[in-house]
Amino acid sequence: MEYYPGPGRNHLFVPGPTNIPEKVQQAFNRGNEDHRSPAFPKLSKSVIDDVKRIFKTRTSTSFIFPSTGTGAWESALTNTLSPGDRIISFRLGQFSLLWIDQMQRLNFNVDVVDCEWGAGADLGALKSKLASDNSHSIKAVCIVHNETSTGVTNDISAVRAILDSYCHPALLLVDGVSSIGAIDFRMDEWKVDVALTGSQKALGLPTGLGIVCANPKALEAAKTSKSVRVFFDWADYQKFYKMGSYWPYTPSSQLLYALRAALDLIFEEGLENVIKRHNRLGQATRLAVEAWGLKLCTIKPEWNSDTVTAVLVPPHINSGDIVKVAWKKYNLSLGVGLNKVAGKVFRIGHLGFVNELQLLGALAGVEMTLKDVGYPVRLGSGVAAAATHLQKSTPLIASRI
Amino acid sequence: MEYYPGPGRNHLFVPGPTNIPEKVQQAFNRGNEDHRSPAFPKLSKSVIDDVKRIFKTRTSTSFIFPSTGTGAWESALTNTLSPGDRIISFRLGQFSLLWIDQMQRLNFNVDVVDCEWGAGADLGALKSKLASDNSHSIKAVCIVHNETSTGVTNDISAVRAILDSYCHPALLLVDGVSSIGAIDFRMDEWKVDVALTGSQKALGLPTGLGIVCANPKALEAAKTSKSVRVFFDWADYQKFYKMGSYWPYTPSSQLLYALRAALDLIFEEGLENVIKRHNRLGQATRLAVEAWGLKLCTIKPEWNSDTVTAVLVPPHINSGDIVKVAWKKYNLSLGVGLNKVAGKVFRIGHLGFVNELQLLGALAGVEMTLKDVGYPVRLGSGVAAAATHLQKSTPLIASRI
Amino acid sequence: MEYYPGPGRNHLFVPGPTNIPEKVQQAFNRGNEDHRSPAFPKLSKSVIDDVKRIFKTRTSTSFIFPSTGTGAWESALTNTLSPGDRIISFRLGQFSLLWIDQMQRLNFNVDVVDCEWGAGADLGALKSKLASDNSHSIKAVCIVHNETSTGVTNDISAVRAILDSYCHPALLLVDGVSSIGAIDFRMDEWKVDVALTGSQKALGLPTGLGIVCANPKALEAAKTSKSVRVFFDWADYQKFYKMGSYWPYTPSSQLLYALRAALDLIFEEGLENVIKRHNRLGQATRLAVEAWGLKLCTIKPEWNSDTVTAVLVPPHINSGDIVKVAWKKYNLSLGVGLNKVAGKVFRIGHLGFVNELQLLGALAGVEMTLKDVGYPVRLGSGVAAAATHLQKSTPLIASRI
Amino acid sequence: MEYYPGPGRNHLFVPGPTNIPEKVQQAFNRGNEDHRSPAFPKLSKSVIDDVKRIFKTRTSTSFIFPSTGTGAWESALTNTLSPGDRIISFRLGQFSLLWIDQMQRLNFNVDVVDCEWGAGADLGALKSKLASDNSHSIKAVCIVHNETSTGVTNDISAVRAILDSYCHPALLLVDGVSSIGAIDFRMDEWKVDVALTGSQKALGLPTGLGIVCANPKALEAAKTSKSVRVFFDWADYQKFYKMGSYWPYTPSSQLLYALRAALDLIFEEGLENVIKRHNRLGQATRLAVEAWGLKLCTIKPEWNSDTVTAVLVPPHINSGDIVKVAWKKYNLSLGVGLNKVAGKVFRIGHLGFVNELQLLGALAGVEMTLKDVGYPVRLGSGVAAAATHLQKSTPLIASRI
Repeated sequence: MEYYPGPGRNHLFVPGPTNIPEKVQQAFNRGNEDHRSPAFPKLSKSVIDDVKRIFKTRTSTSFIFPSTGTGAWESALTNTLSPGDRIISFRLGQFSLLWIDQMQRLNFNVDVVDCEWGAGADLGALKSKLASDNSHSIKAVCIVHNETSTGVTNDISAVRAILDSYCHPALLLVDGVSSIGAIDFRMDEWKVDVALTGSQKALGLPTGLGIVCANPKALEAAKTSKSVRVFFDWADYQKFYKMGSYWPYTPSSQLLYALRAALDLIFEEGLENVIKRHNRLGQATRLAVEAWGLKLCTIKPEWNSDTVTAVLVPPHINSGDIVKVAWKKYNLSLGVGLNKVAGKVFRIGHLGFVNELQLLGALAGVEMTLKDVGYPVRLGSGVAAAATHLQKSTPLIASRI
Repeated sequence: MEYYPGPGRNHLFVPGPTNIPEKVQQAFNRGNEDHRSPAFPKLSKSVIDDVKRIFKTRTSTSFIFPSTGTGAWESALTNTLSPGDRIISFRLGQFSLLWIDQMQRLNFNVDVVDCEWGAGADLGALKSKLASDNSHSIKAVCIVHNETSTGVTNDISAVRAILDSYCHPALLLVDGVSSIGAIDFRMDEWKVDVALTGSQKALGLPTGLGIVCANPKALEAAKTSKSVRVFFDWADYQKFYKMGSYWPYTPSSQLLYALRAALDLIFEEGLENVIKRHNRLGQATRLAVEAWGLKLCTIKPEWNSDTVTAVLVPPHINSGDIVKVAWKKYNLSLGVGLNKVAGKVFRIGHLGFVNELQLLGALAGVEMTLKDVGYPVRLGSGVAAAATHLQKSTPLIASRI
Repeated sequence: MEYYPGPGRNHLFVPGPTNIPEKVQQAFNRGNEDHRSPAFPKLSKSVIDDVKRIFKTRTSTSFIFPSTGTGAWESALTNTLSPGDRIISFRLGQFSLLWIDQMQRLNFNVDVVDCEWGAGADLGALKSKLASDNSHSIKAVCIVHNETSTGVTNDISAVRAILDSYCHPALLLVDGVSSIGAIDFRMDEWKVDVALTGSQKALGLPTGLGIVCANPKALEAAKTSKSVRVFFDWADYQKFYKMGSYWPYTPSSQLLYALRAALDLIFEEGLENVIKRHNRLGQATRLAVEAWGLKLCTIKPEWNSDTVTAVLVPPHINSGDIVKVAWKKYNLSLGVGLNKVAGKVFRIGHLGFVNELQLLGALAGVEMTLKDVGYPVRLGSGVAAAATHLQKSTPLIASRI
Repeated sequence: MEYYPGPGRNHLFVPGPTNIPEKVQQAFNRGNEDHRSPAFPKLSKSVIDDVKRIFKTRTSTSFIFPSTGTGAWESALTNTLSPGDRIISFRLGQFSLLWIDQMQRLNFNVDVVDCEWGAGADLGALKSKLASDNSHSIKAVCIVHNETSTGVTNDISAVRAILDSYCHPALLLVDGVSSIGAIDFRMDEWKVDVALTGSQKALGLPTGLGIVCANPKALEAAKTSKSVRVFFDWADYQKFYKMGSYWPYTPSSQLLYALRAALDLIFEEGLENVIKRHNRLGQATRLAVEAWGLKLCTIKPEWNSDTVTAVLVPPHINSGDIVKVAWKKYNLSLGVGLNKVAGKVFRIGHLGFVNELQLLGALAGVEMTLKDVGYPVRLGSGVAAAATHLQKSTPLIASRI
């Protein structure tokens, strides 16, 4: 059963779920397996250990939940905080908004810092709130590293510097759903206490794993957190880690093998090369947008995201039409504008296992779509701008030199 | 990467995860897809609707969580009950024990009815508790339909009859993880308010879906439930059902296509035929156990499970050794005894897409293993007893007549 | 095991093997099956019948050999001709050359018409040979419909017209390896006696099937052909067709299921739409070549191929370098120049299940590669020319309107 | 599309195609690839080299044809012999019969030694023919190592000894289709000049590869052989081996990756262990047949085959009915009796990646089927006999100790 097929491969340029590499697909193309067999712990340990490398952490403990990013959020919050705890959080797009909504429903006392959609987190507001918090009523700062709805990447190292400058003990919880494994993320260096991602983003897997890393400070906080939790409780996992059987309930063996394959691919390419590739693709996309005479939703270049580009359309065009036409005519999947930017923004996701020519094909599709909906674009202009950057900056594929 | 391979196919006879049919594996052997595309709702609607048929409910609403049975438990409880609510629950094996542990940690007031491991739920105790509950302090009765650790199937229709006989308004919440789709389960007829299962059991999928059905009474209760919930909140799903986009956060498209394929297979065989096949396989297994001179963990035949058989071993044998040898020598995966029955019981799972010859191969493996560990079994005896039943009772495959 | 991996999907733009659609890959992702079971003939019959539709023949009999195009050639020749038989054949590129080499080694008396590489078959030569053949010594005319090495499509209807104008009874044998299912091919209308293709071309399957259609005249000829043959003998197949078991020796069930899936995709899109899509992609590619200031290997537009474009490079550039750089830097697979045009030509294959954006990505890759090897191309120029054509001519995807 | 599905996995116990291991299936679950890319030769070389290890030859050259066993036969004959050459060949079952038919149609002068179906090759006849052949008119001795239709394994070392004892220079050509990789085969030690197999047998692949090894003497003979050949010509392959591009025409990359995976599995288990496993399964099957009170088609134990067991049924039973019922009721695929033994024999294939419990499941299915068709078998009797042997002789799985 497959609905509405089109000829050729779909160009999947939503900011997740992302393209699955062939080796990852082969890895999950398998039957079920007894996760309580003596064979399974070796695989379990290998992915639980190695996934930390893409978070750049050695000191943390990782938890791989059969869940999604939304579940990973819940896990991060409920394990470290107690109902009523004051949290500073920045609302600067749809996903930070949804996380804040979750925080509120989980009965935390969320001190929301509203920021313009397209801007990064208001760090000035953070400073003043910390400055006046002598009693350390703020228990956590929660921030989305890369806001997928607006194409904004926040500077986590700056957040850490601010916390340190006030010697503030608040936990730093970071949503890295659309950044970790694609945009440089340094959990240990930045002393991020909890970081999290989902399998269907930079890792190129199907949806189904919510991956959380917690550093020793976060694990310590978990011991006294009073939030109700069972499914997402780290303590259950830690108990099974100690026993060497790893899973308090049934994991997806298919996804764990797939994760192993994805990690192998990333390490083979080199995590730093993966990050550079995303920067190359992000920069190429932004040059295309400029060539089309369009503006980014992202207000300042310092916030430009290397995994997703949110493009503002002129007022007379509905960005939703662009997404529809791209899909209906060119088998190109783009992201719509969400909530405040609905109709005003469309999004090009360029994260995961994607290369230069896939992106250029997608950009060519965007150009044609723009023309189809009546925007006076010169066909080839965006591709030319992007290709000029890519032709200069793309290295030979290491394995083929 | 695959650890400790053996020649030939593994005989997977743990009571879940179960064997995946080829058509289901083909269905999830695919890349990612944009779940926000105009194409996706058709698939979503089809599985959300059709999965209800294996619960035998027309009146309920189904929720398919990217999660597991443990998550489905949490969803059932937190959506319908409030902290402090009194729940009657039966502890008669490891899985009912774990569910009760979850209830307690979620701050419900659990009135535990402890039953012998191997026995069914103590319905006398239920009667007396209901009889004395004039104030209707009991808000829910929670019961595991099929206790996977002891091979005990409870009589849900009897529970319903008791509740009705006292005109008691308590909700009836049923864990059907290892029964629904294999053992007859009649949600509407038995007025089960919430029922749940997981994808890796009778449905023959990978782990990753927690499937919950809630009837109108349960949905009404959800409106006033004060339990904290976000990831597992039905209301979020209902909101997206109304919008026709179905998913509050990213689902696994692979698993939804796989679910579609599994449902198609079940409907093609006929749900009643599937149930009969499980009965046939369960009966055959019990006859084999008898022929080996061993006892079931299940104390009375009325509680015999058609999806898993828990076998007691003589005191001088450690059942764990049986499981180890079966795996190490015959590539046969059996279930160990858990908790109270650790070392005393091994388990043969016979649920999902499994047929007579697969079972007989597994039973032959159990026989040889019993001999290997020093139990004086006559080789062939169990297979003979099982085959005698199966040869008589197996119908021609409908599609091949 | 996978050698020299690169990030993202390979852009496979050799003129075969071609990109495999996901549904076809799912279809062959299966175990082995007993091809002598009562179930198998239904599948066999369905593909043996339906494959004829892409040849546009109702009168012919099809044979699906577990082999390749080279095997299909051998089958076409040895079943219809006897050693020493005079054949007219046109040598106008590497594949017609190889077929002629096969004819000679099979001991036919090949009357070779050498044509310029880049030109179509010399039909004048054909006329004069037929004109002087009053004794009907010419037993067959063999021609490659689409010469993959030079991007030349021959006019088969013109060949038929010439044969008819001389009332010449010679058989007409056509290699449609890189045309059938992509370029309009009308077996019955053109009275082609034997036509053939391979699975890894327009059908989008793995290599492994050589598909031959023979019309009644060819089947009649087969009765008296004295060429030695066993593996490729039609008579063996015909014997098994009559018995309803279809296969004289073991077929690949995986590839037959895959063929079923590929045919379904083609019929769903509509064969005429598939042909139009290939024309659209061929035209777009040629416009790109023109925009780059390069020449086609194909000498006259009437011979332009819609499945493969052979591009001449300036004398100071080795076309092999273009193919190498494209693969090493952009994960783009192009075809090299073969034999006479080695070093002078590179080839862009655009056949099978490929769409507009995949092509534009590939063209962008060619542009960047041209620049990399020192050819002064303006980046974006070819993509612009191609996109201008495609934006105008691409219809909405029928299933998504 | 799948016809006539049944619940659970098919028990595939025909003597080929055989069960595909999961790792092999994962290996061929991939898209197409450019076989002319710089990456491909590494894979090509690895399988061309390593496949020789299962033939136990270091001195031979291997050829992997995109074809089947029938094609491999044709390749063996046409490369080494000239029309009219005298061949000694033994007709002792359907497959040796078909090979002889091929020899005759290829215009060789076949000196057929007819043997009883169920007996091995008549080596006495061979001796007398060699004894009287002072002129060395016999150019080749062709023999099927394992006659799949009767379950007869010939003693190739004895054939070699006879040839040597007469110092006869005839080539020794051996069909190892259902033996190589399962029954001990020593190409170098036995000085077999050409040996061949197919991918869908002991190697556990889909159909589609005909694998031929030729030793230096055979390669020398190929230089002067006058048989017409192109598709199956070794010289074309040798030319491409020298160039390092390996394939004269397009190979199936999917099957080459699958072959790599299958070889890895065999080497991991150890070829000698694979051979022992086949002996164990063959012996177990024969013990079951004995327990059922039935006779083997194989007349003397020295000819017993470890890959296929042909079972004689009592005169009042049609063996075809057994095969039908097994498939219709138990989803068990058995082989029918062919030609002379049609209706009298059914066959149990036990070759390839199959283990003890799979076999015991199949034997249980045979027992029940025998009862279904009216043969008075005691259910469990055959399984008991087989299990008794297997329980004693099966080693622990090496990777799991």
